[in-house]
Amino acid sequence: MLELSEKDIQPDLDRRRPGQSKIVTPRKESDLVEIMSGVFDGRTLGSPIGMLVRNKDARPSAYEEMAVKFRPSHADYTYHAKYGTRNWQGGGRSSARETIGRVAAGAIARKILRQRYGVEIVAYVKQVKDIVAEIDRSKVNLKKVESNIVRCPDVEVADRMIALIEKMRKNGDSVGGIVECVARKVPAGWGEPVFDRLEADLAKAMLSPPATKGFEIGSGFGGIHMTGLEHNDPFRMRRGQVRTTKNDSGGVQGGISNGEDVYFRVAFKPVATVMHEQDTVSTNFKNTTLKGRGRHDPCVLPRAVPMVEAMTALVLVDHALRQSAIEPCE
Amino acid sequence: MLELSEKDIQPDLDRRRPGQSKIVTPRKESDLVEIMSGVFDGRTLGSPIGMLVRNKDARPSAYEEMAVKFRPSHADYTYHAKYGTRNWQGGGRSSARETIGRVAAGAIARKILRQRYGVEIVAYVKQVKDIVAEIDRSKVNLKKVESNIVRCPDVEVADRMIALIEKMRKNGDSVGGIVECVARKVPAGWGEPVFDRLEADLAKAMLSPPATKGFEIGSGFGGIHMTGLEHNDPFRMRRGQVRTTKNDSGGVQGGISNGEDVYFRVAFKPVATVMHEQDTVSTNFKNTTLKGRGRHDPCVLPRAVPMVEAMTALVLVDHALRQSAIEPCE
Amino acid sequence: MLELSEKDIQPDLDRRRPGQSKIVTPRKESDLVEIMSGVFDGRTLGSPIGMLVRNKDARPSAYEEMAVKFRPSHADYTYHAKYGTRNWQGGGRSSARETIGRVAAGAIARKILRQRYGVEIVAYVKQVKDIVAEIDRSKVNLKKVESNIVRCPDVEVADRMIALIEKMRKNGDSVGGIVECVARKVPAGWGEPVFDRLEADLAKAMLSPPATKGFEIGSGFGGIHMTGLEHNDPFRMRRGQVRTTKNDSGGVQGGISNGEDVYFRVAFKPVATVMHEQDTVSTNFKNTTLKGRGRHDPCVLPRAVPMVEAMTALVLVDHALRQSAIEPCE
Amino acid sequence: MLELSEKDIQPDLDRRRPGQSKIVTPRKESDLVEIMSGVFDGRTLGSPIGMLVRNKDARPSAYEEMAVKFRPSHADYTYHAKYGTRNWQGGGRSSARETIGRVAAGAIARKILRQRYGVEIVAYVKQVKDIVAEIDRSKVNLKKVESNIVRCPDVEVADRMIALIEKMRKNGDSVGGIVECVARKVPAGWGEPVFDRLEADLAKAMLSPPATKGFEIGSGFGGIHMTGLEHNDPFRMRRGQVRTTKNDSGGVQGGISNGEDVYFRVAFKPVATVMHEQDTVSTNFKNTTLKGRGRHDPCVLPRAVPMVEAMTALVLVDHALRQSAIEPCE
Repeated sequence: MLELSEKDIQPDLDRRRPGQSKIVTPRKESDLVEIMSGVFDGRTLGSPIGMLVRNKDARPSAYEEMAVKFRPSHADYTYHAKYGTRNWQGGGRSSARETIGRVAAGAIARKILRQRYGVEIVAYVKQVKDIVAEIDRSKVNLKKVESNIVRCPDVEVADRMIALIEKMRKNGDSVGGIVECVARKVPAGWGEPVFDRLEADLAKAMLSPPATKGFEIGSGFGGIHMTGLEHNDPFRMRRGQVRTTKNDSGGVQGGISNGEDVYFRVAFKPVATVMHEQDTVSTNFKNTTLKGRGRHDPCVLPRAVPMVEAMTALVLVDHALRQSAIEPCE
Repeated sequence: MLELSEKDIQPDLDRRRPGQSKIVTPRKESDLVEIMSGVFDGRTLGSPIGMLVRNKDARPSAYEEMAVKFRPSHADYTYHAKYGTRNWQGGGRSSARETIGRVAAGAIARKILRQRYGVEIVAYVKQVKDIVAEIDRSKVNLKKVESNIVRCPDVEVADRMIALIEKMRKNGDSVGGIVECVARKVPAGWGEPVFDRLEADLAKAMLSPPATKGFEIGSGFGGIHMTGLEHNDPFRMRRGQVRTTKNDSGGVQGGISNGEDVYFRVAFKPVATVMHEQDTVSTNFKNTTLKGRGRHDPCVLPRAVPMVEAMTALVLVDHALRQSAIEPCE
Repeated sequence: MLELSEKDIQPDLDRRRPGQSKIVTPRKESDLVEIMSGVFDGRTLGSPIGMLVRNKDARPSAYEEMAVKFRPSHADYTYHAKYGTRNWQGGGRSSARETIGRVAAGAIARKILRQRYGVEIVAYVKQVKDIVAEIDRSKVNLKKVESNIVRCPDVEVADRMIALIEKMRKNGDSVGGIVECVARKVPAGWGEPVFDRLEADLAKAMLSPPATKGFEIGSGFGGIHMTGLEHNDPFRMRRGQVRTTKNDSGGVQGGISNGEDVYFRVAFKPVATVMHEQDTVSTNFKNTTLKGRGRHDPCVLPRAVPMVEAMTALVLVDHALRQSAIEPCE
Repeated sequence: MLELSEKDIQPDLDRRRPGQSKIVTPRKESDLVEIMSGVFDGRTLGSPIGMLVRNKDARPSAYEEMAVKFRPSHADYTYHAKYGTRNWQGGGRSSARETIGRVAAGAIARKILRQRYGVEIVAYVKQVKDIVAEIDRSKVNLKKVESNIVRCPDVEVADRMIALIEKMRKNGDSVGGIVECVARKVPAGWGEPVFDRLEADLAKAMLSPPATKGFEIGSGFGGIHMTGLEHNDPFRMRRGQVRTTKNDSGGVQGGISNGEDVYFRVAFKPVATVMHEQDTVSTNFKNTTLKGRGRHDPCVLPRAVPMVEAMTALVLVDHALRQSAIEPCE
């Protein structure tokens, strides 16, 4: 059983919270979590853990025009096509607000991974538009990530990223970028050979939140430029363990972790809500225009960092438990 | 019910078959499929459809050294770490041989999608190492893809790709690249808003076969270089339908298809088996070396094309059926 | 989309509520439900529907002795064996309190079944200990069931049941019995041929709440006394429909509904909490005794009736949706 | 990993085989199993284990009349209603032939349970029509069960059962009955508190094969006649273990095993195929008659015994693995 209280979960929610800095949405939400079930006397019971976070600062009036027009590159039209209805007040499930549940669940998964297996998960902003950071992923830690509001541990580059995001906000425009994530001390043997490969589950997890458009693990798309001889990763014994020489595989071979750092990158498109008039279509299927309103992030990446960590933790803990099932205690 | 026989399935298996050209493995497998259950009198029964393809041309002797050494960048070591055992004769489930079941199942999915919804799925080789093809994805079709052995519909570029792959084979080396896939006429409304987003399921499907390292949909990693204003895709009415202007979303918004072409790219790393001496570790954990043997593909992409199509079809048919469940006939 | 509000759900919760009559637990809970998500402007959105009911009248002090002793025939010991911990204040998940979520979810399922398919589900108390009711299951309806506090539509027998339950309560003892349930107007074709047979899913649903020990459908255990010739149910055309003559199959043949009434019986053991000193074992594994305390039902059947209906509705709506998936609209 | 070969599976298939005695169907099937995948060098690999048994002695001609008429109390009509088609040659999935896969899979589950946990599963015929056997379920073993062709360890009663079944066959009629099953040495802690209760999963498993109509665990329907005080099962320490005094719970409390014998009973209706003219309906919806043909069992119970054991093993091994997942090795 796990010791668990709201204190284990709130810090990650605070990292994801709106209104935390000048480069994110100014919406004010305290995002306080309440554990509803599954914990007794400070420890988990084995029951499902229910948690509740209530919305406080919703302003439906800001969305009234969206009731009758589809925002470009949002989910408005596809929800309408699928369900014939949608919650136009803030976007419902298509809002990034949805990711709060992921971060809350992920905080529990991270605690299990840390306590039981020593796994460390660190994500950070690797790129904003054309500004790319240099980061040593074997050493980066939470403190460095949290040292600035854009969550990029390369401090000089971080300043340029912040300046760009502020400029975008002033222009009523938005930017995307890349979040990189590394999971260290993942033991060899997590993952499945075919359908639930570790990298497949990570890919699904990373393409499931709003605004993500790409995933690559290890050498990723860049590995294409190498030949097999260049790309292959020789094994060597090191301190009694089988290790690879350069880890271009990203810690996963044949769908299963090999004991090296698991690392991957996630592409986030620029936020769709911009404060400019754009062509669109109304819910009665006439051409029209729409100008963005409401309080939005000009760049989702700083707040996406804890979400990427959370989703990574959820995937890893799932595979940790599956592995326990095939390694029964003697 | 669906009319179905081996004739619906065999053509895709033949496109995936070893020995089909000079740039793939020379292993001889007829890969004839036998339907075992689920079909009666030429039509599906609603029962699970069992299919069987037997291996014919296996040469376990070529693998004997692998019994005691882990091949670099293969699954040998991770399977050993996970299970304490592995089928070293040809790789077992980690062999690309595993994908034959995907292609067989996908052939049935494609038939359902084509007959019931008019969906067309076409994949092709977009890039081999640094050689990139120019392809109009709104017009490309199976005939063009099959016009050459590398399955790249840009004929001039295809010749250069073939020459590179042949050179690699002579060098005992290998190359990777990118397969692009487009699904046309997918109706608006397929997909789910959160965990089983259409792009998330496609990402998982594409990261589940051997040798894939990345997935991107629509603008993908390239979309990072645009601002929100540039990236957004205005809606316009066209012939009575809601359409987007440029489809940078890749046919999916908020996890759900929007009626535009669904298209994405998959990165394949260079094949790990190369005919050169490489450093590795033995199963009794000593440093050693190993030289690749056996009959292998110097480039998996030509044979991966039908597999990408098959996995796409399986994801789409799953979402088509889910959508049927929420649209009950009146 | 479905019109939905708390008003659709509260009535079933009220039928299940503690303190509703002299023969159930006197615990006072208003059991007011709050819809948290999935409903917008009075209609479902297609999103998951979250509902919340808070406990009000918990008295943990009544349970203090249970912290260190296992109640006989309760889940105390097995939870301890499985998890090494348990919520001893009221029983946690092993409390019948757990069934409130089933009834809330079932109320929505019933509305879908009624509106879309015309399905009617009625459950009632068929037997309490040795007192057996005579009920015409083709005609019984909610009004008759609700005409008395034991929920037995055979009014004379109901009085005897009530008297027995009151006597048991005075004695600090408890009784069990049988709930029978009938689902009328289930269309032919719901269910699956093998693993998810309709009767298999019903059996699982009925054995999943606390205190149930048996399930039988149609002729059930009684059918054993007939030969095949006696048991078989000839088909006859009636008003243009294929009908059976006597429905000993209970509306299901080969795992799939045949258009006749689906009916089954569920055995509930007598409640384990009795107000007498009984032998048991302490959490430090010494023999001891324990006398029941707390506010408990001397007979769970009256409150189990809406729960059986709810679980039936959940099973049926699942199969209705699966059937929609194989009958796509043309 | 598990040592595994066809020799572990064939004996259970032989117990289920048609043509094994004078009281079962005379159809001749050798039912030889071939392991297709998942086993290498005599041990399991962790891959899915594929097995194949081919039908040899099918006589479709015996079924021609069934192509145009629905057999009473069979799945013919419901399959037709659900799918619009069916395999009328022998019944397809609705044939008891379908259970061969369950027995094959169950044989592997039993080996795991026996080797790793010492669990013993024994089923036997408890009742045929009105003939009831007296069996000490704490001592009954495979040898006693296999001592006669009806698989009833009460030898005198077995003779009467055999005589009754032979008489039924001569009359072209059929009978049903009860199979009882006991699983001994199941450790405390297997099962889940709510939806996947051990008894719920057993109930579903037992209602999933052809011809079963009821399930009861422990005191079952009989427990209704007791009060709570009579029914409750005091705990006592015995040889250092928490034990119950009479095990009316059937080894399961609160959905989880308590270390006592898990035992339950399954009701099988009489076989629907009888050699008499019966009223029915044709596939063009006219009243007609049909007389049973083909080679059928006058009583399925003797052949159902290994199937009940197999399904029990599959349920138990599933819960054993889940329990391993929450008890990670330190």
